[in-house]
Amino acid sequence: MSKAEPTPRSAFRFAHRLRVRWSEVDPQGIVFNPNYFVYADVGFTEYMRAAGLAYPQDLHAAGSDLFSVAAAAQFRDSARYDDELAVAVRAAEIGRTSLRFEMYVYRDDALLVAIELTYVNAGRESRRAEPVPPALIERIVAFEQTAPARR
Amino acid sequence: MSKAEPTPRSAFRFAHRLRVRWSEVDPQGIVFNPNYFVYADVGFTEYMRAAGLAYPQDLHAAGSDLFSVAAAAQFRDSARYDDELAVAVRAAEIGRTSLRFEMYVYRDDALLVAIELTYVNAGRESRRAEPVPPALIERIVAFEQTAPARR
Amino acid sequence: MSKAEPTPRSAFRFAHRLRVRWSEVDPQGIVFNPNYFVYADVGFTEYMRAAGLAYPQDLHAAGSDLFSVAAAAQFRDSARYDDELAVAVRAAEIGRTSLRFEMYVYRDDALLVAIELTYVNAGRESRRAEPVPPALIERIVAFEQTAPARR
Amino acid sequence: MSKAEPTPRSAFRFAHRLRVRWSEVDPQGIVFNPNYFVYADVGFTEYMRAAGLAYPQDLHAAGSDLFSVAAAAQFRDSARYDDELAVAVRAAEIGRTSLRFEMYVYRDDALLVAIELTYVNAGRESRRAEPVPPALIERIVAFEQTAPARR
Repeated sequence: MSKAEPTPRSAFRFAHRLRVRWSEVDPQGIVFNPNYFVYADVGFTEYMRAAGLAYPQDLHAAGSDLFSVAAAAQFRDSARYDDELAVAVRAAEIGRTSLRFEMYVYRDDALLVAIELTYVNAGRESRRAEPVPPALIERIVAFEQTAPARR
Repeated sequence: MSKAEPTPRSAFRFAHRLRVRWSEVDPQGIVFNPNYFVYADVGFTEYMRAAGLAYPQDLHAAGSDLFSVAAAAQFRDSARYDDELAVAVRAAEIGRTSLRFEMYVYRDDALLVAIELTYVNAGRESRRAEPVPPALIERIVAFEQTAPARR
Repeated sequence: MSKAEPTPRSAFRFAHRLRVRWSEVDPQGIVFNPNYFVYADVGFTEYMRAAGLAYPQDLHAAGSDLFSVAAAAQFRDSARYDDELAVAVRAAEIGRTSLRFEMYVYRDDALLVAIELTYVNAGRESRRAEPVPPALIERIVAFEQTAPARR
Repeated sequence: MSKAEPTPRSAFRFAHRLRVRWSEVDPQGIVFNPNYFVYADVGFTEYMRAAGLAYPQDLHAAGSDLFSVAAAAQFRDSARYDDELAVAVRAAEIGRTSLRFEMYVYRDDALLVAIELTYVNAGRESRRAEPVPPALIERIVAFEQTAPARR
């Protein structure tokens, strides 16, 4: 993840709200870091639903699937037990065979954790990179208010 | 789980050792209770390996699988971060279509958690109860030092 | 857990809705059993909130805390990825120093998992059983539509 | 994480072995990605133990603690249920107030996941960055075979 400024919240059209569970909090009283990636995953699922995509069924029907190949996170502040969080999700970049998403975890106006996940579209059987299905790209572009970068 | 006395440790032939992870400890500084069922599951896998059974492959090859249908636990004391625990496992009872296992979690000589899990043997496709494969019963009986109850 | 019939759904006043996460589903395509205890824990927190109790702060302020001492579950059917579940929660029995709760997990009208959790009220420092604070009992009794058994 | 070549295995002096648990595997039959960060955390604990440091007690005694502020991962291949993995851990860089570690997850000779974690040393109360205790640096430098970069 670049050291540059984080993406402003206004660039995110979508956010999924969730509440921190007891099971997710460590002895320091804060959310154990790997759980933010679980939140990002939940956010991704809900983003797809909001965009009108039945994930993963729609991709499976097209014979492909998304595999996460890279992740990066900056932990700026900590969530605590019972906090209500907003997991903002956006498609930041669309490549030929890959998608880069940003999942930002907020408590009220405070950005706690900034996550980037890169997915590669691959054949379900071959597990080789294949072009992202045009229907998926269309849906995402139609859903986003800030156009994803194209690569 | 009956209110009777717990099974004595001498009845267990097998134990799997593990160390409490940071991710398993809650803000009270103790292992979050559902994680003891994860330990029991790990113990079950290692018991099967020690008994010479490749689980779940051997069952799958016979067209069946084990489904846990009931669980019970008594939480007597708490494990803490970095504790070394022993998960003792035994087959307590063998029924026609079911198996009852005990998984007891110890720290040194202290019994922390006593778990009972009941599995039903079912067809992988039908998911209907079927007799436990005789080969599985033979392996278990040969492995145990204290003969499981028969029902 | 007794082998008797499960509690009818009408006895539950409260239910918390949640959706199965990818991280909670195992290679069989069903929710890994220990996660139902996580759902029960989430349900308990939300029950307390709905009953007007700030848990655990209110108990801590009174110098006590609830420790789960026993758990039992019957797994009747399996939840799958993305299922919407209702975790119904009720106080089934109030003892002098203990509370017994039922957490039943439903998908639509189907009871998937029936859980019982027994909590003991204990001093935060002493960790010895102490009478359940009357204010907690009053809140629970006022909230329930089906009066909890008294022991 | 830079796009450059991963660190060669020979640069790692230390590795912790673990086996993939059923609870860590997702419906695709592969380890759910956030669990690799749990493995990295377990590896970090065991690295500290091997280096002769009682973590976190030694740091707490000095009034400080390590907070993870950034994480990056490249997922190159997938671990499966029951795989035996080696989590190789090394201190890659020592800064004035921060430490950068690499945790690489191998199955036999294959690098599956390359993780980088950056920790900041902070006052336990203040949570403000403070110089890494010299005793911690000495221990790490003495333990590593490949000298960490100094920044």
